[in-house]
Amino acid sequence: MTDPHQAMLDKICAHARETAILESAQQLLEWDERTYLPPEAGEYRAEQVAYLAGLIHQRHTDPRLGDWLAELAESPLAADPHSEAGCTIRQMRREYEKKTKLPESLVKELTRLSVRGQQVWVLARKNNDFAAFAPILTQTVSLKRQEADALGYEDCRYDALLDFYEPDEKTATIRRVLAALRDDLAPLVQAIADSGRTAPVSILERIYPVAAQEALGKEAAARIGFEFPRGRLDVTHHPFCTSLGPHDTRITTRYDERFFPSGFFSILHEAGHGVYDQGLPSEQFGLPPGRYVSLGIHESQSRMWENMVGRSRVFWEFLFPAAKQAFPDALDGVPLDQFYFAVNDVRPSLIRVEADEATYNLHIIIRFELEQDLLDDNLSVSDLPGAWSDKYRQYLGIEPPHDADGVLQDVHWSAGLMGYFPTYSLGNLYAAQLFRQADADLGGLEKKFARGEFLLLREWLRDKIHAHGQRYAAGELVERITGKPLDHKPLTDYLRDKLTPLYELA
Amino acid sequence: MTDPHQAMLDKICAHARETAILESAQQLLEWDERTYLPPEAGEYRAEQVAYLAGLIHQRHTDPRLGDWLAELAESPLAADPHSEAGCTIRQMRREYEKKTKLPESLVKELTRLSVRGQQVWVLARKNNDFAAFAPILTQTVSLKRQEADALGYEDCRYDALLDFYEPDEKTATIRRVLAALRDDLAPLVQAIADSGRTAPVSILERIYPVAAQEALGKEAAARIGFEFPRGRLDVTHHPFCTSLGPHDTRITTRYDERFFPSGFFSILHEAGHGVYDQGLPSEQFGLPPGRYVSLGIHESQSRMWENMVGRSRVFWEFLFPAAKQAFPDALDGVPLDQFYFAVNDVRPSLIRVEADEATYNLHIIIRFELEQDLLDDNLSVSDLPGAWSDKYRQYLGIEPPHDADGVLQDVHWSAGLMGYFPTYSLGNLYAAQLFRQADADLGGLEKKFARGEFLLLREWLRDKIHAHGQRYAAGELVERITGKPLDHKPLTDYLRDKLTPLYELA
Repeated sequence: MTDPHQAMLDKICAHARETAILESAQQLLEWDERTYLPPEAGEYRAEQVAYLAGLIHQRHTDPRLGDWLAELAESPLAADPHSEAGCTIRQMRREYEKKTKLPESLVKELTRLSVRGQQVWVLARKNNDFAAFAPILTQTVSLKRQEADALGYEDCRYDALLDFYEPDEKTATIRRVLAALRDDLAPLVQAIADSGRTAPVSILERIYPVAAQEALGKEAAARIGFEFPRGRLDVTHHPFCTSLGPHDTRITTRYDERFFPSGFFSILHEAGHGVYDQGLPSEQFGLPPGRYVSLGIHESQSRMWENMVGRSRVFWEFLFPAAKQAFPDALDGVPLDQFYFAVNDVRPSLIRVEADEATYNLHIIIRFELEQDLLDDNLSVSDLPGAWSDKYRQYLGIEPPHDADGVLQDVHWSAGLMGYFPTYSLGNLYAAQLFRQADADLGGLEKKFARGEFLLLREWLRDKIHAHGQRYAAGELVERITGKPLDHKPLTDYLRDKLTPLYELA
Repeated sequence: MTDPHQAMLDKICAHARETAILESAQQLLEWDERTYLPPEAGEYRAEQVAYLAGLIHQRHTDPRLGDWLAELAESPLAADPHSEAGCTIRQMRREYEKKTKLPESLVKELTRLSVRGQQVWVLARKNNDFAAFAPILTQTVSLKRQEADALGYEDCRYDALLDFYEPDEKTATIRRVLAALRDDLAPLVQAIADSGRTAPVSILERIYPVAAQEALGKEAAARIGFEFPRGRLDVTHHPFCTSLGPHDTRITTRYDERFFPSGFFSILHEAGHGVYDQGLPSEQFGLPPGRYVSLGIHESQSRMWENMVGRSRVFWEFLFPAAKQAFPDALDGVPLDQFYFAVNDVRPSLIRVEADEATYNLHIIIRFELEQDLLDDNLSVSDLPGAWSDKYRQYLGIEPPHDADGVLQDVHWSAGLMGYFPTYSLGNLYAAQLFRQADADLGGLEKKFARGEFLLLREWLRDKIHAHGQRYAAGELVERITGKPLDHKPLTDYLRDKLTPLYELA
């Protein structure tokens, strides 16, 4: 006789797997839109995506699902929250409640405003016209407040929004850790600016033929453990990673023939995301034990491979001979140390997506502070450009000459994404904290990396992180692995250790 | 006040457009499977396709749809069968009735057998083992008989199956026309074999770099009117064309560096299909006035561009200079006439998909005759290989040395596709009949083609064929355009006129 609770759980899982099929079809539509869609096919593609999104939403909010989950949450199957069943029930219930708490009218209004907002933003940025964007941002802030209120929160509105991207994380924690990070980084960045040393970046601005970039990038991705038989690499405008099935993880990049890091480090970054997706339990695809924990943990994987591994001296000890073969003209006579310094160019700049790994977090902290102020009504939209400039001056020592390279540079707010930015820095923080632990657990990684042995780190990550899906919340997972809660020290230590000799700091 | 019938029709059309979104998502999954899918992603892709197929089938057989269509069929909106509304109601009702006549158990059994059949066939062909395939073919024939009986027919079972691919066409008509074609072609092919002349095909077996093939193929496709802003060209194993939206038509090819025609004529062929799809009324996408008429008409478009245009002397008068630039080594010193003869190599061969435009139809006629005999129980599966050899000897003067290159060469029967083969020859017949009419209507095409003016033929086809979607049945459409019913004479005249001088026949 089958346990009736188990039968109910089986039914829910079958339902979720069907939903995942629709979601993966929608993701293929989106991947294709960003890689191969013919120019005139965009309008119908939007209709296809919207229709599938509607079907998916219906399935996610099916009231039968709510009833079953409510009953299962009280059953013995839910007793151990870290078991496969416990994780499934907890996370599906959490998702169901989140989706059903929001009135349909608000969901529709948010969607409409996000589409419209992005259109207006594109033009406003192009025309350097913050005033044209301000009304829609005001509306967005107002709707995001309503959304937070409908979802509910204990401490602050920001918690409710953050929860979409970093479940179970608290704004107060992030505020504390990022403030400490800021206090360490701002003087470090200042010291680098004052050092008078500049990285020889012109090495990277020679001609790097695209075909050779692709070949080297694929080799590097495969070396760190991205499995090409279960994935692909394609070209796009804004690199991303998506998984269209348990064995179908697709990464993308863009190549700049005159700037080597653009393509190469995008590939490493996205391959890092891809290695995470490929490490999730494939038989649980579409179910919580087969899903990624949080955006912060996802970003920790991409950042670790991109920066802690890919910008390390030992990585290039291994790969530089291959790079010299791939680019015999550009790298003719270039010493490894010069190349290594060039890919670790650190200096304050205006654009987040072009920032180096040290200053990047200051860009995030600025946005994180500003969006909290907007939501809490401590800052009006009309005062935002001024506040933006003040913080850039304060934390980075520079100021945008105009809003297009300032407050208008990111798509996020126009698309209704508030509470998203801190996950980028969480990624850097988690990456450093986890990397330090991996290095200790694996008896020192440097020598191994210098020999091209990267897979042992991938196996460690699979074992400690990927294999667990959503069984543990992000913070819980990291504490379980490292024995410590989220902490800014490993990241500042890592950056100081690397940058002090490069910039000859005291 | 809205007419209640019109309101009902609007509802049906909205329903059909939603179904078309799911169908186009399924087609993207299939396009991707045949172009870019990672090797290990096939299993989940099959699940995705099967799940969407189920949703689509549910929508097609929704009983509400049947009720509405039955009522509309009696309404004034259906009075003119060639009007937009009349066509929509007639064709949707036809589709609904076809889909609901089949018991679900039979549909599932056919699907199951088709999947299994293809798996068994792949192995049987590889091992040259007809006996391994025979039991599944026997089952398939039996189920196809049940399917025909469930659908109903007046004259013969084959009519019921043919109707899937060539709606409203009759087996008796095809039998008569193909018999006349066979009687003309067999002696023509024999005369060519006896002529002692052979085309200088070795010209085409030199090295043709793939990148240059792609560039020339794209140029040719664009010249004949395939719109790349609304389409793409990609690489696959078995070339095909698919439309994923009203402005998203994708063609595919495969390149053989050592055989120029393989890639080039596949591109022209698929571009011909693509030009048809791109010419269908885009605002009617997913509705009968926006859908292709029949496989025969679709194939007539691809064959016309591939053969009547693409293998004509005037086409190469125009394109040969570009080809010489693209392949300076391979075509060094090659005269146009030699190249023209080489791409019109005609000789009996064993494999249908490699056959030239004259012998191709004999391959089809053999399959058409044999599958009728199987369905009518005039031929047992165990006697099929012998019957195959007899007909090849009789019509083409050659015999397969083994079944792998004989009766096991095509996937169709293993996939349950019976009644499909004649649409290939219908394509050739319609192409010749329509091309003759276009030539007359447009005052002679040769001089224009020699100058690279192909778009006037495309416009003629759009006006006469593409713009009508399914408003007229295939036979009706051709008779309306040419003033005559389906006839074998234009095709035999075309082939005789072209091949007589090339092979110096009497």
